Amino acid sequence: MTFSYDGNDFNGYQKQKNLKTVQGVLEKKLTELNKSKVIIQASGRTDKNVHAMCQKAHFDLDNKIPCSNIKRYLNRLLNGSIYVSNVEEVPGKFHARYDCIKKEYRYYINTGSYDVFKRNYIYQYNKNLEIDKMNKASKLFLGTHNFKSFCNDSKERTNFDRTIESITINKINDIIEISIVGNGFLKQMVRNIVGVLIHVGENKLDISKINDIFYKQTRSYNIKSVPGCGLYLWNVWYR
Amino acid sequence: MTFSYDGNDFNGYQKQKNLKTVQGVLEKKLTELNKSKVIIQASGRTDKNVHAMCQKAHFDLDNKIPCSNIKRYLNRLLNGSIYVSNVEEVPGKFHARYDCIKKEYRYYINTGSYDVFKRNYIYQYNKNLEIDKMNKASKLFLGTHNFKSFCNDSKERTNFDRTIESITINKINDIIEISIVGNGFLKQMVRNIVGVLIHVGENKLDISKINDIFYKQTRSYNIKSVPGCGLYLWNVWYR
Repeated sequence: MTFSYDGNDFNGYQKQKNLKTVQGVLEKKLTELNKSKVIIQASGRTDKNVHAMCQKAHFDLDNKIPCSNIKRYLNRLLNGSIYVSNVEEVPGKFHARYDCIKKEYRYYINTGSYDVFKRNYIYQYNKNLEIDKMNKASKLFLGTHNFKSFCNDSKERTNFDRTIESITINKINDIIEISIVGNGFLKQMVRNIVGVLIHVGENKLDISKINDIFYKQTRSYNIKSVPGCGLYLWNVWYR
Repeated sequence: MTFSYDGNDFNGYQKQKNLKTVQGVLEKKLTELNKSKVIIQASGRTDKNVHAMCQKAHFDLDNKIPCSNIKRYLNRLLNGSIYVSNVEEVPGKFHARYDCIKKEYRYYINTGSYDVFKRNYIYQYNKNLEIDKMNKASKLFLGTHNFKSFCNDSKERTNFDRTIESITINKINDIIEISIVGNGFLKQMVRNIVGVLIHVGENKLDISKINDIFYKQTRSYNIKSVPGCGLYLWNVWYR
């Protein structure tokens, strides 16, 4: 199942008791359709306020229901803030999380005047940023690195190595779009990378200091925490 | 004062008891600043869910406060869904409603796939429309007409004559933008005109029937009511 959602409407992706979450809402509707409990497995979680343009998840049903019926059924009941764009059958072994080989996240920053209509969809930074410096700095993140310094959950994980394939920074009018493609992302890793790029773009951090942040492998450097509402899980790829 | 607002956050522009409205919120903040009651006069009301890109209003304060301070004060307190882009001094006789000579409204329609991120900002029609026919039909609205058939409040007013200066229909990717400029607009007049244009664009209404709707001067023809969230008060002009 491929779907998009507006992160503002949910307390994050992952199921939580008594809170409206994307997983919670989808499982409730699918359980009603299936008439017994359905668990969905997504490519990964997204935090509170973070959006998905193209999230993917798998699930099993007890009875064969045509994919187009599932799609129609969900979109009729989901009330608008989740939209299922595709449902298709996959081999029984397929796992939406473990088989995922690559993800793209995008982060949007408004460097122009405050925009009431985009305040929940684009980070309203509303000041100029030196995009050339940000582009230069972004090269230091490419390839395989230990990203512990860019992870907000350093206690729980053991392997912090991740590979970033590309970072593309474009400016369309006043909007900066940062696209990051990689094999996997730690908790808040994209927002911490974007935070560092903004520090560079506002001349508060010299590019030469970025390697120091990597080497320290702690959150010792006070990275600007950019709001979730500018972040989109943009695409997910499988083998 | 020039300001934009996100109509989704308010029960319309006009003050109402115990309901959050644009006028209510602005008057509360200005009254706190002025330390005695401030009433604001806008160019006109907007309905529930209807946005403003550029609304204008005037008000009087007891003491002289620099315009830039008023702007900063309001934007610090307004919590993001209203944004004041300009405050300037005007002659004492100026009236934001009575001196208004022209307004532009824009209506946005998505003819492509459902978009969760725009669901509160662009009407999700999600089917194709014949834009050439809509363009042809729009010419019949130009000039001075009795717009009683396009007004949802036909009892209260005596003069239903309004002059439409231009209607421009553009399609950018899947989004249709309808811009209507006129000397004044009756209640729901823009949404009723757009409703008729959509009927024409979906081949449910022949262009030749539009003059009949005008002549009848009642709401006898069942005009499609298009949602408020696609409508923006876009600009306001003064002598």
